[in-house]
Amino acid sequence: MRRYVYDFASGNKDMKDLLGGKGANLAEMTNLGLPVPPGFTITTEACRAYITSGSEPPELRDQLVTHLKALEERMGRRLGQPDDPLLLSVRSGAKFSMPGMMDTILNIGLNDASVTALAARAGERFAWDCYRRLIQMFGTTVLGVDGRLFEAALDEAKRGKGVAGDLDLDAGDLWALTTTFKGLIAEHAGRPMPQDPFEQLTLAVGAVFDSWTGERARIYRRQEHIPDDLGTAVNVMAMVFGNVGMDSGTGVAFTRDPGTGQAGVYGDYLPDAQGEDVVAGIRDTVPLQELENLDPRAYRELLRIMRVLEQHYRDLCDIEFTIERGKLWMLQTRVGKRTAAAAFRIATQLVDEGLINADEALRRVSGAQLMQLMFPRFDRTTAEPIARGVSASPGAAVGRAVFDSRTAVERARAGEKVILVRRETNPDDLAGMIAAEGVLTSHGGKTSHAAVVARGMGRACVCGASALEVDTDRKRFTTADGTVVHEGDLISIDGSGGQVHLGAVPVVPSPVVRYFDGEAAEPGDELVAAVARTMKHADAVRRLGVRANADTAQDAERARRFGAEGIGLCRTEHMFLGDRRRLIEDLILAETPEGRREALDALLPLQRQDFIEILRAMDGLPVTIRLLDPPLHEFLPDLTDLAVQVALDKERGEPDEDRARLLQAVRRLHEENPMLGLRGVRLGLVIPDLFAMQVRAIGEAVAARRAQGGDPRAQIMVPLVADAAELRVIVARARRILAEVAPETGARARCPIGTMIELPRAALTAGRIAEEADFFSFGTNDLTQTTWGLSRDDAESSFFAAYLDKGVFPVSPFESVDRDGVGRLIELAALEGRTARPGLELGVCGEHGGDPDSVRWFHTAGLDYVSCSPFRVPVARLEAGRAAVIRDGGENS
Amino acid sequence: MRRYVYDFASGNKDMKDLLGGKGANLAEMTNLGLPVPPGFTITTEACRAYITSGSEPPELRDQLVTHLKALEERMGRRLGQPDDPLLLSVRSGAKFSMPGMMDTILNIGLNDASVTALAARAGERFAWDCYRRLIQMFGTTVLGVDGRLFEAALDEAKRGKGVAGDLDLDAGDLWALTTTFKGLIAEHAGRPMPQDPFEQLTLAVGAVFDSWTGERARIYRRQEHIPDDLGTAVNVMAMVFGNVGMDSGTGVAFTRDPGTGQAGVYGDYLPDAQGEDVVAGIRDTVPLQELENLDPRAYRELLRIMRVLEQHYRDLCDIEFTIERGKLWMLQTRVGKRTAAAAFRIATQLVDEGLINADEALRRVSGAQLMQLMFPRFDRTTAEPIARGVSASPGAAVGRAVFDSRTAVERARAGEKVILVRRETNPDDLAGMIAAEGVLTSHGGKTSHAAVVARGMGRACVCGASALEVDTDRKRFTTADGTVVHEGDLISIDGSGGQVHLGAVPVVPSPVVRYFDGEAAEPGDELVAAVARTMKHADAVRRLGVRANADTAQDAERARRFGAEGIGLCRTEHMFLGDRRRLIEDLILAETPEGRREALDALLPLQRQDFIEILRAMDGLPVTIRLLDPPLHEFLPDLTDLAVQVALDKERGEPDEDRARLLQAVRRLHEENPMLGLRGVRLGLVIPDLFAMQVRAIGEAVAARRAQGGDPRAQIMVPLVADAAELRVIVARARRILAEVAPETGARARCPIGTMIELPRAALTAGRIAEEADFFSFGTNDLTQTTWGLSRDDAESSFFAAYLDKGVFPVSPFESVDRDGVGRLIELAALEGRTARPGLELGVCGEHGGDPDSVRWFHTAGLDYVSCSPFRVPVARLEAGRAAVIRDGGENS
Repeated sequence: MRRYVYDFASGNKDMKDLLGGKGANLAEMTNLGLPVPPGFTITTEACRAYITSGSEPPELRDQLVTHLKALEERMGRRLGQPDDPLLLSVRSGAKFSMPGMMDTILNIGLNDASVTALAARAGERFAWDCYRRLIQMFGTTVLGVDGRLFEAALDEAKRGKGVAGDLDLDAGDLWALTTTFKGLIAEHAGRPMPQDPFEQLTLAVGAVFDSWTGERARIYRRQEHIPDDLGTAVNVMAMVFGNVGMDSGTGVAFTRDPGTGQAGVYGDYLPDAQGEDVVAGIRDTVPLQELENLDPRAYRELLRIMRVLEQHYRDLCDIEFTIERGKLWMLQTRVGKRTAAAAFRIATQLVDEGLINADEALRRVSGAQLMQLMFPRFDRTTAEPIARGVSASPGAAVGRAVFDSRTAVERARAGEKVILVRRETNPDDLAGMIAAEGVLTSHGGKTSHAAVVARGMGRACVCGASALEVDTDRKRFTTADGTVVHEGDLISIDGSGGQVHLGAVPVVPSPVVRYFDGEAAEPGDELVAAVARTMKHADAVRRLGVRANADTAQDAERARRFGAEGIGLCRTEHMFLGDRRRLIEDLILAETPEGRREALDALLPLQRQDFIEILRAMDGLPVTIRLLDPPLHEFLPDLTDLAVQVALDKERGEPDEDRARLLQAVRRLHEENPMLGLRGVRLGLVIPDLFAMQVRAIGEAVAARRAQGGDPRAQIMVPLVADAAELRVIVARARRILAEVAPETGARARCPIGTMIELPRAALTAGRIAEEADFFSFGTNDLTQTTWGLSRDDAESSFFAAYLDKGVFPVSPFESVDRDGVGRLIELAALEGRTARPGLELGVCGEHGGDPDSVRWFHTAGLDYVSCSPFRVPVARLEAGRAAVIRDGGENS
Repeated sequence: MRRYVYDFASGNKDMKDLLGGKGANLAEMTNLGLPVPPGFTITTEACRAYITSGSEPPELRDQLVTHLKALEERMGRRLGQPDDPLLLSVRSGAKFSMPGMMDTILNIGLNDASVTALAARAGERFAWDCYRRLIQMFGTTVLGVDGRLFEAALDEAKRGKGVAGDLDLDAGDLWALTTTFKGLIAEHAGRPMPQDPFEQLTLAVGAVFDSWTGERARIYRRQEHIPDDLGTAVNVMAMVFGNVGMDSGTGVAFTRDPGTGQAGVYGDYLPDAQGEDVVAGIRDTVPLQELENLDPRAYRELLRIMRVLEQHYRDLCDIEFTIERGKLWMLQTRVGKRTAAAAFRIATQLVDEGLINADEALRRVSGAQLMQLMFPRFDRTTAEPIARGVSASPGAAVGRAVFDSRTAVERARAGEKVILVRRETNPDDLAGMIAAEGVLTSHGGKTSHAAVVARGMGRACVCGASALEVDTDRKRFTTADGTVVHEGDLISIDGSGGQVHLGAVPVVPSPVVRYFDGEAAEPGDELVAAVARTMKHADAVRRLGVRANADTAQDAERARRFGAEGIGLCRTEHMFLGDRRRLIEDLILAETPEGRREALDALLPLQRQDFIEILRAMDGLPVTIRLLDPPLHEFLPDLTDLAVQVALDKERGEPDEDRARLLQAVRRLHEENPMLGLRGVRLGLVIPDLFAMQVRAIGEAVAARRAQGGDPRAQIMVPLVADAAELRVIVARARRILAEVAPETGARARCPIGTMIELPRAALTAGRIAEEADFFSFGTNDLTQTTWGLSRDDAESSFFAAYLDKGVFPVSPFESVDRDGVGRLIELAALEGRTARPGLELGVCGEHGGDPDSVRWFHTAGLDYVSCSPFRVPVARLEAGRAAVIRDGGENS
């Protein structure tokens, strides 16, 4: 027979799949001998069977009866026992913590009869309050009655009596309320409040199961990639009461500060209260330390238990507990969530305390956290925030408040920076969200539309800043203290911390970035010290190299300070901007081979000097220089603008010959889909002199650096190859030119020549391409665009946000590498490339090279290095280290 | 020891790999007991060894000596024997016939001594003429002396004597010429004409080997996909002489007419001549039939041998022979080349004669040949051509003669049809070739630049019309009879037949097309009868289905007449053109959901009627309707034109509000790369009402056809899917709408819903997509564009021609499916799609569905059907049949 129910004493913390997170940890604490109220867990398997068949599996009822009987014997009281009823709590508990699911029902077992017995034993007011709570929770979460009806009745009772707080209602008021509440249930649920305690229990369990398939839970799972078929467990536990006098209470505690990572005791305590009162925020909690005065014995016991848990879990734990008449009970524990800063500090503290080793510490931080620590932050010396909300998408953003999408787009087009402010966002706001620097809402949490879309698009976002009253009609919002912010007013939001500020708050670089940039850390800055130690270990263990994408000596220098081991992508087109645009225009407009050659001759010394400087900055390290990639018309004016201008010239009788000729050239070079047109290696084959000039410049730069005593390590990279034949021609020509340069300059210019793999066909024919290439560099941006058949720019401004919003994408394939499509091509090309040419160097130079998830995947795929923007180099180093210590690509638990 | 030399008697016709085509067939004839002069073949293996090591393999010399000795014994004469020398011919012979390689050297064995012996035995003039020919051929082809030097000396000798023909030179003149020729060799080759006959032989053999790696041979192989490492064989044969009197001669013969396929004897004969005289065209040949009068015995013998060969080879043979003093010698035979019409007629004749079966007949024709027969042709009743050339790329083209690329482009832009006329083309002419209807050159053959590029781009081309004198400076050409054709004059070229006509020759549909279209063939039209029989057999044996791409009832009807078994692609966007463009404009410009719905409501009945008519035309057969694919802005005016217009409106003080608003919409919808933008399923997800309207129209059309008693078989196809999630949403919505339509219309509208696989990612995730799709249709156009990362339109007007020209592509991947890239994705998707959903229907609806090579490959890849333009349906049927009878995807021999 399948076992659907586990006593707390028969599970352990590693049984999360079966018992859920909460159940597994309750079992673990029970077995550690900690004071957990007796109880049992109904397994996720029971839930799955329930969902599949639509009803409880037949064995479940028998097992439930058996375990209930055992619990009753142990407690010496029976469920529904008229003189001394056993009361139970029922709590959901999936493998992953999941908002949107039914959470808790307390006081199961009370009914019209047993409530009087409880009143006799524990006090009238307490008993009727317990019963009122049960009916209210049961009515809303199990029977589906609108919770606002109960709230209204409660408010009405208080108003009738002229009091403000629940505590001001006496036993008689509460008795009357239970009658009202029962009436509400009968009216709106179409059935009376069940009086059979066992029926209460089974209905509550069924309701937990049902909540797994509720819409909010489904949406949450889709967004968080939690499989739909896990199911939830249900924890049934004997009630303990924190609300039976001042020798009782309830609290939450952390074994270290989850905000900063500081060691010590952190938490909140609320005397004479139940857990839900803390959550509801009806009364103010006191710092946990005050418990030492209120109940020194319970306090010492709590500290002891916290030490036991931390030693046992070897991590920050968060705890829920209740004290009933001086007796401490543990209701829940789990490894606690923490901020990015706390993650780094706690991990290194635990190493120092001998609880974990350096590998484990590395597993416990993430590149995403490091990225958060590297975002510029608001200067701390500035005024207090006007509101706080959920830190939904990181980054500090400053801009003018706007209250609708259209205004956001218009102002952004006019060059203004804007923050889109809404009560909540919906798909109609997408254009505005794209146009804005950041998004601020007064409603919704981390999984709201605003949060999900903003994260997907990399916009800063603060959600659910509930103190703000947003009035979109009048285009303004009001803060808690009555300050009114109008459209156009400057505001600042910190998507990492959740703060909202009035005015433009100055932004300063993070201390972590200052450290990477070579500044000495401030003495005692434990965060920087923790990051530094973690990075050192990551560098020691990682196999994956980290290079940077950099086009100037300045960028190269910074990348090197940030730990880059070379340049994986130096884009030569960036050297044709500014003053030099005229030279490339000459090249394009040249009508004869001589004219073209003249233009190229003028470009040669400039390119050479660019390369000399970059090679100097990266002396001794590889510098991969990509030959010209974009289509030539990118260097010319916009067709439509120019056509309008020429038409106007003519209309005004002031024809401009040069402009008209330029228009002709632009029209000639115009392409319907330039991304798929004459660029990269195609340009190199059609205008051989162009690549020839660049190769010559590289060869001469290498020679010059050698002459200066340097150690230049240039590599030449050919973009947009689709077929080995293209590369073969270019390589042969490049080798000839490099051979020519050698005697001319008195130095040998030997550089590897490789190719980008950025088209599906290149990946599919990688074996043959490898025969011509010294190295591969996966251009994951273009590879994603062609594999998906979408242009990033066009897609992001049209359907992308809608896709993220509808869950078609969980995450944009430009943010994190798409394993199933692009990833499959990379694996195939890596395998077939290396088979054809053992030892072929494989790198990545698309933006994914700096994305934490993608970096780990690149490690698993066996690549040699990633290349990313200089700023992302530390993130890539960290994730490369983590990848090396995370087995099977799994995450830390 | 490796065997490098085979006596003719020890080979056979199946040893082409080792002995080359000529050698294998000489061996076959020898073994058939036919009169072949004794000789032997040096293998391709010897050639490969020679190329690899740079010198003859050591064993070769010994084997050559051995075989030579055997030959000498058999002939009773020795090489270089002073009184009666054995003379040899040396001929190259690769597996595939290859222009560009050294062909023949005759009279090896003659030297200053033996020539006098020959003179004594065979006549003074004959002997010195033989020696003169040897020195001339040896000097040019073996020693590399410029052939024009010998020609000039020969001309000089004739001029000095005041005669016109070679035959007017007497023995003394020829003796003098040999002295001059030897002087030319000594001067220009830096060595004397070798006098040692064996050295002559080995040098000639080495020269044949060397010619394999010559540039022209390489280029030819690259264009014809012949591997570089095959090597050539060398045939050494005892000389026989057709030039020893009027009882001797030489000729070529065909066992049937290679032009029409008519049975009978076809060929040319030249008395008292050697083969090279026929080729050189110095004297006029006589029809082969005249040999019956000249030498009845030899003629009867020749006819007997031709019958033997045809029975033996079971195919049209072509033959080279020589008669020496009444004795017939066979110098070569091979299966003869033939025109498309001859191929069909001969194949069916041979079936009727019992020589081959119907499968074999099918293998012997090709879709490319059928296509040639289907091209419109010039009306036969028109005047004679002004010139003939090589039929380099099929099709009839009419246009105005232009003589340079720039003029071609300008006139084509102005809407004129032009024919580009050049002496020969080079890469600078590419733009003009693209702009022209056809290309005509006076120089070059089937592998010239013009021919290769025109075939690659599908332009009609006649090459090497050498009777034309092209004067590009004066922009005119002159015909043989002095007619001058100027720029702008109308000319017509027939790329299938090689004719050039003055004026616009009327073009008529081919009789084969008229037959497919249902017209009765003219009585006695054997070609049409042969095609009809072949098609019938192809249909009987083929496994691959053939459907058509058709968007109107008219196209559908024609496709059905042409044999289509359904519509594989019905493009709904074509239904939004013409008058209806306004409705789709309304849809796009609608600013409210209501406005959009109104526009869609207006479109619904029109779409429904379209579908009703197409379903009627294809009653009982599947009709796959693709939901809207192109981006919406394709239905709006061009951005640049509109911007200019609006700017001018404003400048003139006549602002047009509507036009300005239209411009705004065009700007809003503008995409940098529309092919990769908001289109297909993306549009369906962003504007759900659009697809909803189309699905409803399909459902209602099916219901209407059922009500009319029809058998409508609509299938709904979703374009541009990259991920299963996209399809899932659309399919769910479509099913809901179809379910709604069912009760509304009183009929059940059940149609399969499938997807196009036209993005690499769709192919890479086909397993998951198959879970949502009832069928796959590979859109090979878009799949090629995204796999290669190139836009067909942009590529063809910029770098494509250069790629074809440089041999980067052997053929455009849009002409014939790219096996290595696109094909690999198709195979993968077919496998994984069928694994996920056994029985999944797989089709192809890109243009490759009508390409002969591709159709055969789709058969091999296991697809269920191809869909192509109605006109290509017969070609696809034929190739599908051929695919079924060609084992292992191999070609007929």
